[in-house]
Amino acid sequence: MDNIRYLRGWEKLKEIDGEQGERVIASLSDIAPDFAKLLIEFPFGDIYSRPGLDLKSREIAVVAALTALGNAAPQLKVHIHGALNVGCSRTEVVEVIMQMAVYAGFPAALNGLFAAKEVFADRDAKKNAPEK
Amino acid sequence: MDNIRYLRGWEKLKEIDGEQGERVIASLSDIAPDFAKLLIEFPFGDIYSRPGLDLKSREIAVVAALTALGNAAPQLKVHIHGALNVGCSRTEVVEVIMQMAVYAGFPAALNGLFAAKEVFADRDAKKNAPEK
Amino acid sequence: MDNIRYLRGWEKLKEIDGEQGERVIASLSDIAPDFAKLLIEFPFGDIYSRPGLDLKSREIAVVAALTALGNAAPQLKVHIHGALNVGCSRTEVVEVIMQMAVYAGFPAALNGLFAAKEVFADRDAKKNAPEK
Amino acid sequence: MDNIRYLRGWEKLKEIDGEQGERVIASLSDIAPDFAKLLIEFPFGDIYSRPGLDLKSREIAVVAALTALGNAAPQLKVHIHGALNVGCSRTEVVEVIMQMAVYAGFPAALNGLFAAKEVFADRDAKKNAPEK
Amino acid sequence: MDNIRYLRGWEKLKEIDGEQGERVIASLSDIAPDFAKLLIEFPFGDIYSRPGLDLKSREIAVVAALTALGNAAPQLKVHIHGALNVGCSRTEVVEVIMQMAVYAGFPAALNGLFAAKEVFADRDAKKNAPEK
Amino acid sequence: MDNIRYLRGWEKLKEIDGEQGERVIASLSDIAPDFAKLLIEFPFGDIYSRPGLDLKSREIAVVAALTALGNAAPQLKVHIHGALNVGCSRTEVVEVIMQMAVYAGFPAALNGLFAAKEVFADRDAKKNAPEK
Repeated sequence: MDNIRYLRGWEKLKEIDGEQGERVIASLSDIAPDFAKLLIEFPFGDIYSRPGLDLKSREIAVVAALTALGNAAPQLKVHIHGALNVGCSRTEVVEVIMQMAVYAGFPAALNGLFAAKEVFADRDAKKNAPEK
Repeated sequence: MDNIRYLRGWEKLKEIDGEQGERVIASLSDIAPDFAKLLIEFPFGDIYSRPGLDLKSREIAVVAALTALGNAAPQLKVHIHGALNVGCSRTEVVEVIMQMAVYAGFPAALNGLFAAKEVFADRDAKKNAPEK
Repeated sequence: MDNIRYLRGWEKLKEIDGEQGERVIASLSDIAPDFAKLLIEFPFGDIYSRPGLDLKSREIAVVAALTALGNAAPQLKVHIHGALNVGCSRTEVVEVIMQMAVYAGFPAALNGLFAAKEVFADRDAKKNAPEK
Repeated sequence: MDNIRYLRGWEKLKEIDGEQGERVIASLSDIAPDFAKLLIEFPFGDIYSRPGLDLKSREIAVVAALTALGNAAPQLKVHIHGALNVGCSRTEVVEVIMQMAVYAGFPAALNGLFAAKEVFADRDAKKNAPEK
Repeated sequence: MDNIRYLRGWEKLKEIDGEQGERVIASLSDIAPDFAKLLIEFPFGDIYSRPGLDLKSREIAVVAALTALGNAAPQLKVHIHGALNVGCSRTEVVEVIMQMAVYAGFPAALNGLFAAKEVFADRDAKKNAPEK
Repeated sequence: MDNIRYLRGWEKLKEIDGEQGERVIASLSDIAPDFAKLLIEFPFGDIYSRPGLDLKSREIAVVAALTALGNAAPQLKVHIHGALNVGCSRTEVVEVIMQMAVYAGFPAALNGLFAAKEVFADRDAKKNAPEK
């Protein structure tokens, strides 16, 4: 069963952001390989794989939350990639982040926009970004 | 122009949650009436009225952010009402909140679920809750 | 396998705080029964059940973190009970909370101490509190 | 010397808010009397007693910070009293809290305003509030 | 009217920190030009332009809040510049930040002091810093 | 007496992490030398020197809290060093940080693990790290 959760989680992670995800998993291999396993099983195998909320809405929720918390820039960038990968437009990502000015203040929104700017530039550099 | 922003904001606030919104505005009338005006103009007149992101996605973003921050229970409840009013199902609201366990921890998600429980009971008591 | 995680988690939760734990699980039964299952499986079945850190140290870590975050009073109280149940003295709990004044400020520490005061009184009322 | 710090702190606490301060100190007497002593010595004896920043500015700084953090309502109320006691007008207190909408979001500012509303009503009830 | 808010906001921003402000506005021009407009209109045109609290007190409030939140270093630096530009001495800025050790812990205060150190060095390098 | 607190604090700081501690104290010498003194006296002279909680438990509490808060990476690294210096194994440090995924979310735990990875590499480079 754990194996099923792991495989299901890995599939979901690939769907959201395979490249960034693999990098995170690899970076844990020496210090906490079990945490890499738990990260695939619980967030991606248990939560993201649930029916009841589409993946695009899930990524909007994460981008909103990480922008508001303001203390997890690397993970925010991963999920801005993720949001774009599962169907959000760049405009939608920018709107979600701008809206956080209302709930977490202008500095949180500004830092979220700067994270988005880096992600967009990164994708432009790779010529694999057809989002508007 | 300010008048236009105010009117546009008030219409948007009514669309999201007229009843709860009026209560908040009224509660500010003695201590900070200008803040009530700014609250209608900026969040609702400027931000929520922008094109580029549908209202249902905006409410998902707020429910996610306020659950994650965990320090604004009254406003979270207002926006759980708002999410249901603009087309989210109860299941979608519950899924957004559960997902926050991944980004802000289980206590934040638990307290978000208890807020949702109160809102659902409140709506059931008023027999005006056809959401599933 | 999931069944094993659930059973292992439930045993661990009972060891830490059976009474409080059952109450939390029960309170989720109508709104998000799946979350109750995930709560037993991941935190208690996966994390608390790991070797490498004794249960007393784990409870010290939680009391410290929830005091510092300052936005999850109900869960802090559950884990003050938990800390006492797995072998911390009241003095040790108070010392952990006081120390948080250094890392999260005096208001966070004060509110943590008031939570501890409630828990100690609750245990005294039940005459089942031999902690010093 | 510790005695000097304690006496200096106690004098400063009385200047800021003797009544509220005594209540906090008393509430710690059974659970953590040493923390009451440290609370008088370090924040009030060491920090508030420093030259270089006037007491009114110090209270503006605290009201701003506790409004922004949003997780310490009891201490925010103590310092709204304190700000009024050391010379801030009610208008100034309200302006500081409103400004936090920019830095910590509208919910934080709203909850700060509701705290101020309670404090103002409390002072009005005691007929000892000549602030405008 | 919006035009009036924009012009009033721009004047206020220049008064607080024209150079840093222009840089922030410019950095938004490609990703979210509307957010630059909102940033001038709401925080500076609506909030900072209000009577009832002097600009020096407003900057003290921001430096306190951003030090306490601890997750917006770039904006904290902008407002340390701002505080010095509108009349705070370096000593007053340092005192506000030190005081945050009481409300948000020593790490928040330390990181605030290191931000101030950078700002002071930056101003010294430009020979335009007559503050004591 | 202050002198006693300072000396006691300095001894305690050296016991936890002399090298890192001296660096922090030195970095404050130009901007806020009084804060360096207060930092030795209150956290280390008053809090860490208290009986009632062993030093290893105290360092577990700090690593937990700073991982959960997620906005004080430099201080988290100092205390990961500290935890190892006073007897925690690397495994115990990793377990405390992993556990924070439950209370503050996976991004907080991930960033805590990356901080630990840097500290472990730093200690390996100095060949003075016999921890397992």
